[in-house]
Amino acid sequence: MAENRVIDTKRVFSGRVINLDVDTVSLANGVEINLEIIRHPGASAVVPLIMDPDPKVILLRQFRHAAGDTIWEIPAGVLEKGEKPEDCAVRELAEESGARAGKIEHLSTILTTPGFTNEVIHLFLATEIEMGVASPEDDEQLETEVRTWGEVMEMIENGTIRDAKTISALLLTKNRLRL
Amino acid sequence: MAENRVIDTKRVFSGRVINLDVDTVSLANGVEINLEIIRHPGASAVVPLIMDPDPKVILLRQFRHAAGDTIWEIPAGVLEKGEKPEDCAVRELAEESGARAGKIEHLSTILTTPGFTNEVIHLFLATEIEMGVASPEDDEQLETEVRTWGEVMEMIENGTIRDAKTISALLLTKNRLRL
Repeated sequence: MAENRVIDTKRVFSGRVINLDVDTVSLANGVEINLEIIRHPGASAVVPLIMDPDPKVILLRQFRHAAGDTIWEIPAGVLEKGEKPEDCAVRELAEESGARAGKIEHLSTILTTPGFTNEVIHLFLATEIEMGVASPEDDEQLETEVRTWGEVMEMIENGTIRDAKTISALLLTKNRLRL
Repeated sequence: MAENRVIDTKRVFSGRVINLDVDTVSLANGVEINLEIIRHPGASAVVPLIMDPDPKVILLRQFRHAAGDTIWEIPAGVLEKGEKPEDCAVRELAEESGARAGKIEHLSTILTTPGFTNEVIHLFLATEIEMGVASPEDDEQLETEVRTWGEVMEMIENGTIRDAKTISALLLTKNRLRL
């Protein structure tokens, strides 16, 4: 499919994590429009899977101002400058949950909402977990909770888990491991 | 978990689909920070499942300027003012793919990326599909493609499908129907 031709781009806002640009674009069909784009540095997220011997997952209860609610998530965070996605996943797992992973594998890299942002989240599965003490940042409001695999699947089915990266990563894990 | 106290909110930008606010917030732990929030009207997305008799899915190939690429998605679109999520799903399905659904059911309502936006996408499963002619809007660049269920699962596993709402909705469908 033909690409767009960008005629002009304006940086409208520079924030802590995101920047907002307005691009004036000529579409392949000749239509000319302004498109709002949130530029984001990208992030990693990780499913911490404990085999005990039955599978369990470390989840976070995190207050998210944008969602206006405390929601269920897997550990995740924004990539630091030059940081590899896998290193970010390992770091965020340790900071947010205290856990260390003996093994980490890539599940997929998702576009969170490609209608208005270039944000990608690299999804990982962490196994051979050693529990430890979390060290969240000052502006993070979170608690860890361990749930069985059956409970987690029920939380997805009944709408308790609503975060897209968390649903995607958990169901990709289910497929990968045939859980 | 305690909620944040919003001390101030500023509308920084009003766009075609999204608005950007900066909220000054006092967290429950006493920390005061500025948070960037993209306010979004919400959207619906729908898995059009054809039983022929083996399951097939109508997918879209859509150029997304923000992602800088042509990506695979299920039909989706932004809620119009006062529009019910289910009605939006039916409308977008017809506009983008030409298909009409005899039956539509709710799968889940996801938060696309709750770190910086309040956007929710209501996910639906459409069955008893009748094919028709698409009528996309001027600024939409898309083509429909029908894929077997096996092909769709392979496209998720190998990273060809990267859109979070699409992965979530397809894997929720797999769970729901035990496909």
